Amino acid sequence: MNEVEVKAKAAKSASKKLAYLSTAIKNKALLDIADELVAKEKGIIAANLKDYTGGEKSGMSAAMLDRLLLDTERIKGIADDVRTVAALPDPVGETFETRILPSGLQVGKKRVPLGVIGAVYESRPNVTVDISVLCLKSGNAVILRGGKEALHSNSALAKIIQSAAYRAGVPDGAVQFIESTDRALIGQMLKMREYIDLVIPRGGADLINYVAQNATMPVVTGGIGVCHTYVDRSANLEKAVAIVYNAKVQRPTVCNALDAILVHSDVARSYLPRVAEQLGKADVELRCDERALKIIKPLASVKAVRATEKDWGKEFLALIAAVKVVDSLEEALAHIERYGSGHSEAIVTEDYSAAMKFLDEVDAACVYVNASTRFTDGGQFGLGAEVGISTQKFHARGPMGLRELTTYKWIVLGSGQVRP
Amino acid sequence: MNEVEVKAKAAKSASKKLAYLSTAIKNKALLDIADELVAKEKGIIAANLKDYTGGEKSGMSAAMLDRLLLDTERIKGIADDVRTVAALPDPVGETFETRILPSGLQVGKKRVPLGVIGAVYESRPNVTVDISVLCLKSGNAVILRGGKEALHSNSALAKIIQSAAYRAGVPDGAVQFIESTDRALIGQMLKMREYIDLVIPRGGADLINYVAQNATMPVVTGGIGVCHTYVDRSANLEKAVAIVYNAKVQRPTVCNALDAILVHSDVARSYLPRVAEQLGKADVELRCDERALKIIKPLASVKAVRATEKDWGKEFLALIAAVKVVDSLEEALAHIERYGSGHSEAIVTEDYSAAMKFLDEVDAACVYVNASTRFTDGGQFGLGAEVGISTQKFHARGPMGLRELTTYKWIVLGSGQVRP
Repeated sequence: MNEVEVKAKAAKSASKKLAYLSTAIKNKALLDIADELVAKEKGIIAANLKDYTGGEKSGMSAAMLDRLLLDTERIKGIADDVRTVAALPDPVGETFETRILPSGLQVGKKRVPLGVIGAVYESRPNVTVDISVLCLKSGNAVILRGGKEALHSNSALAKIIQSAAYRAGVPDGAVQFIESTDRALIGQMLKMREYIDLVIPRGGADLINYVAQNATMPVVTGGIGVCHTYVDRSANLEKAVAIVYNAKVQRPTVCNALDAILVHSDVARSYLPRVAEQLGKADVELRCDERALKIIKPLASVKAVRATEKDWGKEFLALIAAVKVVDSLEEALAHIERYGSGHSEAIVTEDYSAAMKFLDEVDAACVYVNASTRFTDGGQFGLGAEVGISTQKFHARGPMGLRELTTYKWIVLGSGQVRP
Repeated sequence: MNEVEVKAKAAKSASKKLAYLSTAIKNKALLDIADELVAKEKGIIAANLKDYTGGEKSGMSAAMLDRLLLDTERIKGIADDVRTVAALPDPVGETFETRILPSGLQVGKKRVPLGVIGAVYESRPNVTVDISVLCLKSGNAVILRGGKEALHSNSALAKIIQSAAYRAGVPDGAVQFIESTDRALIGQMLKMREYIDLVIPRGGADLINYVAQNATMPVVTGGIGVCHTYVDRSANLEKAVAIVYNAKVQRPTVCNALDAILVHSDVARSYLPRVAEQLGKADVELRCDERALKIIKPLASVKAVRATEKDWGKEFLALIAAVKVVDSLEEALAHIERYGSGHSEAIVTEDYSAAMKFLDEVDAACVYVNASTRFTDGGQFGLGAEVGISTQKFHARGPMGLRELTTYKWIVLGSGQVRP
């Protein structure tokens, strides 16, 4: 047996006890992990320095290096997030949809953990902590497989999590960290349906697609957001400027940021110059269809170019937005259906029927009326924390919190009943 | 484009409108389908006769022929089931977990259909009707691919469903039936992730495994039940006899029927002869471990043989049960974990702690105390109807009704909110 097999079996075994561990012990484990992260920050920072230096040597970009970096403040932030999860309600054990059948049988569903979660992720070492504590709190064992570029940081964090958790009473083996950076191990991990109940890939599109195509167990895919905001003919244009600006500029590198503006032709001449001026101030490049370009091009302060076919349906993750003029709500809906990724889509309108039609017909995890798509987030939606944002329809959609890491079993309590 | 491609695209297209079709139209469609099935029973019976005659010629077993057969009474029964589904509440459109965020944003989940359901099934033609109406009622389009042996029957039923549904206002194309019996089309269907949102295989283990291994979209696997009943040292033995007898004998050919009896060694000598005598009257063959055989073998009226390794973890679907004596609840739990299929497991006990431990530790869709596993059924559990019984943990577990054919989207209603 190689490393993955040994660790997957150990995780499965630990998951049996972890499934019905008391909330008190799980919370104590989380609070102890938070304390230990702060107490041992020197060791974490030393390990992180090795990764950082390695990243510099290998020519990693400044943005990537920044994601990799751990310092006192960031470690404190990670520890605070752990305390937030400790304070959230425990989803496990809830009994719901209980009914008493005519025979007197009591039938209900009881919420239980999924079992073992496999996490395959890249770059940011805080994911090691985030996913571990979300899994522990929801009663799941976890197998962590982080990126090579953050190996020393992830390993140091995992050791702290393991020792603090096990000392608090979490079953030994509940948190597994794969030390080997051999990529073949990922492929092998994805075949271990018997031991791993769910795989969560966190990273770029290549990683997510690789995991989705090769996993034999369920996968939560997501994190890729091609997000449109449609400015309707009846939009309040002031709101439409603020919403589009926020969705594009407030944090352009994340999945819920705006990628394309669709605007109704009736208001394109009044709206586009206003929004383009604003976006121009933030250095946003606009990739426009022919009609939009005619309106925007004359503005000296705006970077505007002709869009090519591959600008539609593209997740820019940068200060770039595609812009298209449409002649109807229906045309906007058709465009979103064709090019959207099922993440977050918005309409800006004061027309009740248009809002209702958009809500009904857009098939996405999160559908907005008159608000910025940047709100798609577990914290913003009131879930407290998230393991990711699902763009699939099965099991969970949109931000996934603790509850989405659980399933249920039917509990049937009888007194000798037999089926007639 | 071949038949599957054309029909899958048509289903996807229809699913867009079907998703927000009114409950009234969906119910009218279902009631019209029920009426038409009865009105056109002659045509159905004529088509069924072709399949039946073909089955006889090809040497189909009597049990298989019986499953295939449609007569006036059975058609009436199918129509009645359709009316039952029409009377169930529509799961679509329900809004839940709604909250108002500090910013004034209203965020909630709205229940929506999955989209297009692919059904791959064998033998019993009533599945054509059952799955179609469950999909329609839950707002899903459906692509039906039945077995070759029931092609004429399935085709006749599908035509009736289509014409009645479309006349009632269901979008054209919502019910697709694959006429070709080329097996390669199943493989192709399983690759059409873009058009099919979920595949439900209904049939034998071979079919289910083939679909699970080859589908690129989510699959609901289930229907294979290796079900244990554990008779604890503190069991009320009278109840234990009645429960085990019912679980084994009441309908032995279905997935929730008992496959193995585990009995605590403290009560084996008093319990096994009593239950064996009862089971013997129903001609049940008992495949026993060494200790059970010693107790049962002397009984003249009982067919008892030594169990082989492959009798543990076997779904008999017949009047056969494996019997094993265990020395503790823990040994029973370990046996169930190793050999169970995650379907339905029961304990018979008067000991509170033993019952709680069993409920906590058994990882199965349905866990019973003091009742027959034969109750695992959508109708029995109060769901009204079921598309199948899931033995996976993701999305839905156990009997799957209308609600389990849906997902949700997050609806965010704002008045110009942007993220700070």
